[in-house]
Amino acid sequence: MPDTHFAATLVVLDLTGIFVFAVAGALVAVRRNLDLFAALVLGGVTGLGGGFIRDVLIGATPPAALADWRYLLVPVAAGLLTFVFHPTVGRMERTITVLDAFGLALFCVTGALKALDFGLEPLPAALLGMVTGIGGGMIRDVLAGSVPVIFEGVLYATPALAGAGVVVVLDRLGLPLLVVAAAGFATCLGWRLLALVRGWRAPLPRGPANV
Amino acid sequence: MPDTHFAATLVVLDLTGIFVFAVAGALVAVRRNLDLFAALVLGGVTGLGGGFIRDVLIGATPPAALADWRYLLVPVAAGLLTFVFHPTVGRMERTITVLDAFGLALFCVTGALKALDFGLEPLPAALLGMVTGIGGGMIRDVLAGSVPVIFEGVLYATPALAGAGVVVVLDRLGLPLLVVAAAGFATCLGWRLLALVRGWRAPLPRGPANV
Amino acid sequence: MPDTHFAATLVVLDLTGIFVFAVAGALVAVRRNLDLFAALVLGGVTGLGGGFIRDVLIGATPPAALADWRYLLVPVAAGLLTFVFHPTVGRMERTITVLDAFGLALFCVTGALKALDFGLEPLPAALLGMVTGIGGGMIRDVLAGSVPVIFEGVLYATPALAGAGVVVVLDRLGLPLLVVAAAGFATCLGWRLLALVRGWRAPLPRGPANV
Repeated sequence: MPDTHFAATLVVLDLTGIFVFAVAGALVAVRRNLDLFAALVLGGVTGLGGGFIRDVLIGATPPAALADWRYLLVPVAAGLLTFVFHPTVGRMERTITVLDAFGLALFCVTGALKALDFGLEPLPAALLGMVTGIGGGMIRDVLAGSVPVIFEGVLYATPALAGAGVVVVLDRLGLPLLVVAAAGFATCLGWRLLALVRGWRAPLPRGPANV
Repeated sequence: MPDTHFAATLVVLDLTGIFVFAVAGALVAVRRNLDLFAALVLGGVTGLGGGFIRDVLIGATPPAALADWRYLLVPVAAGLLTFVFHPTVGRMERTITVLDAFGLALFCVTGALKALDFGLEPLPAALLGMVTGIGGGMIRDVLAGSVPVIFEGVLYATPALAGAGVVVVLDRLGLPLLVVAAAGFATCLGWRLLALVRGWRAPLPRGPANV
Repeated sequence: MPDTHFAATLVVLDLTGIFVFAVAGALVAVRRNLDLFAALVLGGVTGLGGGFIRDVLIGATPPAALADWRYLLVPVAAGLLTFVFHPTVGRMERTITVLDAFGLALFCVTGALKALDFGLEPLPAALLGMVTGIGGGMIRDVLAGSVPVIFEGVLYATPALAGAGVVVVLDRLGLPLLVVAAAGFATCLGWRLLALVRGWRAPLPRGPANV
């Protein structure tokens, strides 16, 4: 049955995205010389945190990740692997950044679709799609004691918002789900990868700030 | 119909409070040389964060601000204006601080009333009124990488708790809504403005701390 | 009626745990020279924060602590006492750390039981038990501007996870509630106290991190 195949594909994609996000999160813990538990927690919140914020805000509790043990074991496995093999993982940073862009594109699409599914209007749904993609990394940075990296010029949230925006607009136009999802995914991924390759940055304030 | 007028007035007041809070939040981003996205996020969480915490805790999900696009566009507009015109906005700091006191007084009242409306007892309702007023600024400071300013002697939370406390006590006494709201608003605003004018501070610990 | 005795005992234990956690939280505020309000807030979030996160995630809103004024007054009393008598309280640090272990053991058990009660599977229920025990302290550390202490080698989260894990396993085996709770409590408490006495630490990453 194609439906089952589609659902299974979605779960595999979702778990892959969580895995990649969790590796990036655990790497932050290792680089600050934090302990194994920190690697697991920072991995877990990076992978699952965005979805948790979205689910709590739309009232979809308990969040999906707390109802399916695979969603909990994947970040644990990612955190353990990263903690043990961190010199190797650390050298793969470029690869991780590219895979992370895939995770971001995936989460902004699934986040926006879930918010629409819970009856939210297009604008808040797009916003929650972006939050699904970027929320986990923001919690990770705050827990690790720093200002979120996406506040300092990294072009990361805008592609996520654009991808989620494409999803809500095309969904409103009544296009088939697969087209909606693919277009949102491609928008976010393309923009993010272009930003990486060309070194695009988000605008910083001009002129001196009157402190 | 007077009811419609009253409701419309409330929305206008609410949006004004969110606007002022969001300007103050975006200004924090600009002063730390964070990017445009940070200005929008810090503006947004300052304006809406307190209400989000309250709504999630009382189970009023999705929060009102996610069901009405005006509540999302106002902080975006505030963040953009602040980012672009920050030298001008920065010089208006005194004005912003005074307007911020109006926002605080408004939010502690509406927060306490909403909590009562959801069946909470007076004590937790007063607490949630305070949280509605101060929560957004606390998330902003944490995201910006600093200890919340209201932890360092700024007399800000106490007026909010007092205003919310007046609301729950007068509501319990059965007074008309308008009287309840006006008294709570005046209590918080008066105390906060007096604290600003006279330089009142919250008490700091006495004597050396045994670290 | 024995049931009433049991329930009353649980509430007393719960309030004691919250008191001890709140004292530890308020002490953090005093040692950073933060104001009275910070002592109350850091005391409150340390005592109640873990339960709040759990309740919001499982959809048990409003959290129990917002429906019972005793749960709000206990941390306020703890915060006030700590703020005023901090030189004395500060000298009792060793005692507080031991009492804190009792609070941790209690919260990981009650947290896991409540999650099971709301229909969660064993694995997420164990996780939420741990979160109930450690969540408040993590929020406290973030609000106080530092990386959570339990990320830097302190063996604190593992005993909580172990205690909660024992609870979900024994509950699945159908043992009586009192046995389940006692075994989980003893596991967490014993492990945590042994870690304190013997100076056990959580593993740190080996080798240099490629920053």
